Amino acid sequence: MKPSEFKTNGLTGEAAATNKGAALSEASFGTCPLPITAHDTVQLGHGSGGKMTNDLISKLFVWAFDNPALKRMDDSAVLPLGASRLAISTDSFIVDPIFFPGGDIGELAVYGTVNDVAMSGARPLYISLAFILEEGFPLADLRRIVESVRRAADRSGVTVVTGDTKVLNRGKGDGVFINTTGVGLIERPVELSSSNVRPGDRLIVSGSIGEHGMAILSKREGLEFESPIVSDAAPLSELVDAVLDAVPEGVHALRDATRGGVAAVLNEFAVAARVGIRIEEGTVPVEPAVAGACEFLGLDPLHVANEGKMIVAVEDAHAARVLEVMQAHALGRDAAIIGTATDTDAGMVIMRTRLGGTRVVDMLVGEQLPRIC
Amino acid sequence: MKPSEFKTNGLTGEAAATNKGAALSEASFGTCPLPITAHDTVQLGHGSGGKMTNDLISKLFVWAFDNPALKRMDDSAVLPLGASRLAISTDSFIVDPIFFPGGDIGELAVYGTVNDVAMSGARPLYISLAFILEEGFPLADLRRIVESVRRAADRSGVTVVTGDTKVLNRGKGDGVFINTTGVGLIERPVELSSSNVRPGDRLIVSGSIGEHGMAILSKREGLEFESPIVSDAAPLSELVDAVLDAVPEGVHALRDATRGGVAAVLNEFAVAARVGIRIEEGTVPVEPAVAGACEFLGLDPLHVANEGKMIVAVEDAHAARVLEVMQAHALGRDAAIIGTATDTDAGMVIMRTRLGGTRVVDMLVGEQLPRIC
Repeated sequence: MKPSEFKTNGLTGEAAATNKGAALSEASFGTCPLPITAHDTVQLGHGSGGKMTNDLISKLFVWAFDNPALKRMDDSAVLPLGASRLAISTDSFIVDPIFFPGGDIGELAVYGTVNDVAMSGARPLYISLAFILEEGFPLADLRRIVESVRRAADRSGVTVVTGDTKVLNRGKGDGVFINTTGVGLIERPVELSSSNVRPGDRLIVSGSIGEHGMAILSKREGLEFESPIVSDAAPLSELVDAVLDAVPEGVHALRDATRGGVAAVLNEFAVAARVGIRIEEGTVPVEPAVAGACEFLGLDPLHVANEGKMIVAVEDAHAARVLEVMQAHALGRDAAIIGTATDTDAGMVIMRTRLGGTRVVDMLVGEQLPRIC
Repeated sequence: MKPSEFKTNGLTGEAAATNKGAALSEASFGTCPLPITAHDTVQLGHGSGGKMTNDLISKLFVWAFDNPALKRMDDSAVLPLGASRLAISTDSFIVDPIFFPGGDIGELAVYGTVNDVAMSGARPLYISLAFILEEGFPLADLRRIVESVRRAADRSGVTVVTGDTKVLNRGKGDGVFINTTGVGLIERPVELSSSNVRPGDRLIVSGSIGEHGMAILSKREGLEFESPIVSDAAPLSELVDAVLDAVPEGVHALRDATRGGVAAVLNEFAVAARVGIRIEEGTVPVEPAVAGACEFLGLDPLHVANEGKMIVAVEDAHAARVLEVMQAHALGRDAAIIGTATDTDAGMVIMRTRLGGTRVVDMLVGEQLPRIC
């Protein structure tokens, strides 16, 4: 799963048939290992996509909604429905500011969920759209967001089929929060999962990293860089289609690198599949403006959020073809092979730096950039 | 639709096949009839489930996500998926207080969405669960809510399949907000819709009304009544099954009476189906404690929210059987026929009072009880 989420994947036919949730009995509710991460209250870090989020998920949500498939930890739940397989994914968006260079909360809410659904190999079909508004929020801004949702949905090929609107008293919210939940249909015989990454798999990133996070940060903090940094928010379903059309076998996992950045995705692969991951710093595409801003602010681009980039784990024999297909698509033009899964150092991500040394690329513990999405 | 929601229903096969959203071109985005309800900013009333909510929906959301089916205005979207029909519904929960007599935000979040899915005649299968937490929220309370979600999901026969957690800086939220989105499968050849109510249909309420709203209000305001009022929060899918098993034909619409109360549902039936509705005040079941509290506070129980009550519109010939089946179920024990759809007074709900007079039962314009769910 994205560390910031808790998702079950691949419920068995039996689970779907009995449809009674997981097997955990109520009696076992007495054993929850709280306090979580040594805190008694929710911390910003619990929403970071880093280790604190993972702690909250594994100690509370996995405990409550335990399921044999929960540990597959993928971006969307894959579920049987008659003879079909559905993919379902949910995300809430609390990004601050709501309008930022390259996008706004409306398109983020569409692309974020469409991308999670697409990462399972599903074709995203339908999304729900739920607003939590604060009393006093300008209706003109709401209109602008709704227009943006509509355009993003059209671009992504999904239909907004249902919605909800709630209003908070002034001071009890922060303008607008959006939840979208996406439903897609898996029409290919693929089984994509973080846990399916295998030693020898090549890891491909679909383009330059860190742009969304740095665009938000620069707007929020009023920072001006020489070249403005623009969010990469985009729907990845076409790119996924192109890859899986060209290489129907050999692709083991897809994951969009949102909160927690590429580092979080690689660590999740390493842990879920019990492999090591080696990457080469020099091969990771980073725009000069992002690299400069990160250096200035002391941030590692590998930890910075993206909203239109994915990581592909693919057998070495098919890697060149996947790379070629991705580079032929506008959203994968700068795709690059950045590393390899190994059968040593299971659970760890190790980077060879430009200077020739090596360092561990960890997940962040807590919050680097709150409210990035 | 629930006035507080915007939902499309029954997309055509073509819409599903092209899957490109509705036909509205971007060019027409220039014609949105803002300002909405003469306000420039979001008002509490926009989330009330009353006329202001309807205005927001019809002038902004229907405009942006226009669809021939949107006007069916039902609780969940009904969508083709291969040879099946899916029902999808979303709801965010911002109830204040989060723990109240008879329930908490966790079970409300499950039942609210399960019930919306069930009203289409679907069997609810899966729900997503997305938390927006405020920094500083007690983890022990979060645990209590998660346990409650789990129990409510088990009771409702749904599996929590995917989730999300976001955290707001302290002061930018209010403890906890939850979004749930439910997916169900319609396995019966039913076509339930507000717009299908016909003159002559009998209107049946599944039990005594106003308990959820008054339970919230009494807790929030520290009111003490002679007998404590407890929320009626409950999953209605079994009751729906019982009704549709016994009477597979002749049931035209089901609707749970949440925000806006029974008055909102009846008005939506009247408008969507272009019928009049006559009800008898003396037949509407109201617990004495709720009646007393409403009288004391100057509220009309018809406008007060429920979370475990539904209205059935059924042909007169089948009404007695539906009533019998409902009364045989624990959640329909106090079911009663409260009125009839007419071919006069289209769009209006008229009540004969206990004193023998008549009055129009309108939807509220704005907010009666904010943050009721």
